[in-house]
Amino acid sequence: MRIGELAAARGIAVTWKPFLLGPVFAAQGWDTSPFNIYPAKGRYMWRDMERICAARGLPFCRPAVFPQNGLMAARLALAAAEENRLDTFTKAVFQAQFGAGEDIADESVLRDCLGMAGLDLGLMQRAQAPDIKSALRAQTDEAIAAGIFGAPSFTSGTELFWGDDRLEQALDHAVAGAI
Amino acid sequence: MRIGELAAARGIAVTWKPFLLGPVFAAQGWDTSPFNIYPAKGRYMWRDMERICAARGLPFCRPAVFPQNGLMAARLALAAAEENRLDTFTKAVFQAQFGAGEDIADESVLRDCLGMAGLDLGLMQRAQAPDIKSALRAQTDEAIAAGIFGAPSFTSGTELFWGDDRLEQALDHAVAGAI
Repeated sequence: MRIGELAAARGIAVTWKPFLLGPVFAAQGWDTSPFNIYPAKGRYMWRDMERICAARGLPFCRPAVFPQNGLMAARLALAAAEENRLDTFTKAVFQAQFGAGEDIADESVLRDCLGMAGLDLGLMQRAQAPDIKSALRAQTDEAIAAGIFGAPSFTSGTELFWGDDRLEQALDHAVAGAI
Repeated sequence: MRIGELAAARGIAVTWKPFLLGPVFAAQGWDTSPFNIYPAKGRYMWRDMERICAARGLPFCRPAVFPQNGLMAARLALAAAEENRLDTFTKAVFQAQFGAGEDIADESVLRDCLGMAGLDLGLMQRAQAPDIKSALRAQTDEAIAAGIFGAPSFTSGTELFWGDDRLEQALDHAVAGAI
């Protein structure tokens, strides 16, 4: 929710790269979210997210279904990129899941997200095209190869930064690299 | 390294409570540090720590042995508490392990830490007393019961905060609770 403003303030360009978390987790040996595998840590992470959203004035509603199947949402994000709406659409999807507690595997939820991003419902069909599917697979492989093990992750040069709380560090690294 | 100064600036009293990480990890189903169980995450965590230490001007040297047996160090920390030197001694132990890359299972390293904290070497014997041993076990059980799954963790009222990057949140929560 905040990368756009913080990056713009530093004059840094951001390239969003959607990937699937399932294969990334599988590469670590996890068959579901670590929030579910480790209950004490999971309870903490939800509370942490709730506190952060409250502090930032963001709505938060823990989804009943978690983790969710984000395959269609991720493909749509790649289709939205062709319309220069990747960031707007992605934020709508995250707000649907974590702000409203909805299930983003539900096509009606995704259609609402397209609407909120000012995108045409025809993208539902575009998202099923073979080149979109293979691009998402390639980007997921690229994420694993880059050592990514969770989301959000930020890369700047060869450096990897993981988590909302490392966003400023990542952007500062990009500023230093750009000088 | 920074809790003392930040807490003092907010007028907050800090009670340090050493506990053993081994039983805490075992309660999560981990038989060693998650840094070792999940290599991609482990590589990242070491690099993250290296970057944070560089940014704060703290020495960093990744220890060859990890995780280390911190049993004697933790018992000594409880003995140091009786001399009101718990924080000073603990910082010396963390600097030995992560600043100098030494093994804190080594008694000569611990003797150096006692010396740096201005403590008597007689504490090596005090640390082996039954009441110290049982106090450490009780405090470790208390940590697990509080939902703690890693270190450092901070509690304020019924809220749990995990990790250096949540220190300010924890202290701010304590300030709000004290008003």
